[in-house]
Amino acid sequence: MRILGIDPGLAIIGYGLIDFIGNKMNVIDYGCIYTESKLNLPDRLLSIHNNLTELIRTYSPDEAAIEELFFNKNVKTAITVGHARGVEILTCKIHGLNIYEYTPLQIKQAVVGYGRAEKHQVQEMVKMLLNLEEIPKPDDAADALAAAITHASSYNFKDSFVIR
Amino acid sequence: MRILGIDPGLAIIGYGLIDFIGNKMNVIDYGCIYTESKLNLPDRLLSIHNNLTELIRTYSPDEAAIEELFFNKNVKTAITVGHARGVEILTCKIHGLNIYEYTPLQIKQAVVGYGRAEKHQVQEMVKMLLNLEEIPKPDDAADALAAAITHASSYNFKDSFVIR
Repeated sequence: MRILGIDPGLAIIGYGLIDFIGNKMNVIDYGCIYTESKLNLPDRLLSIHNNLTELIRTYSPDEAAIEELFFNKNVKTAITVGHARGVEILTCKIHGLNIYEYTPLQIKQAVVGYGRAEKHQVQEMVKMLLNLEEIPKPDDAADALAAAITHASSYNFKDSFVIR
Repeated sequence: MRILGIDPGLAIIGYGLIDFIGNKMNVIDYGCIYTESKLNLPDRLLSIHNNLTELIRTYSPDEAAIEELFFNKNVKTAITVGHARGVEILTCKIHGLNIYEYTPLQIKQAVVGYGRAEKHQVQEMVKMLLNLEEIPKPDDAADALAAAITHASSYNFKDSFVIR
């Protein structure tokens, strides 16, 4: 199974693709989609949609995992980032991907085993679990890989309750 | 010119289509798109996208006008409705429509001539300006028509500064 992890955003959208076969996870690609702040909101949303569509067409993931938004106290910013995340979810759905949402707490729990883990601990574990030589950069890409790992782990977790 | 007005939302999305030729406005259609609350967010976003796409294909509007979100104090709700509005804007952009955003204040100002007008005053003016026999129902459809009227008025306003 190929999983597309997404760290949602308007200016920077992290993505990370992993293959999950048996209990093994292999990185396929990771990086970021950027939108220019000088563009207006509709053009930025279209740009996110087009770039994410290209990514999905290139790698044909089976499922997607996206981090839930932290509820910012700045309502105006929260609404704007909400617009972008809506577009990111829609783009996955248009291409037939089921999309799973995970809170930052769930991601830390799944990746580090501790819900209050620090950012660098998450990044170190992403590097280790995926056999990477370095911590994936930028942070948004590492966060996207962490979301993908969380989704893969959820299958392992379910499996542990299956009587074979 | 054909204008698609949108009153954004997740559960109820108002729409209103008007033709604007010379100084005359004619209603083409209005109504609401509904999404079921029992569906999950990705399915509701896809449903909005599909229904809005059908509407755009049926009526081929030239431009779209969408109301800005009122900044709700409930950040969680604001983010969720932000997801839906992002999808509504994206869907218009995918079909090549330029989309214009208007605040509730701008809409009241354009339709009633008074930024602090009451809801029923806006609805009465929508009825009068569009030569309708009754106030358009539900409210969300009337609000969408008001957004479309506001966009049409913006052209009149611009024209008034053009030396012919």
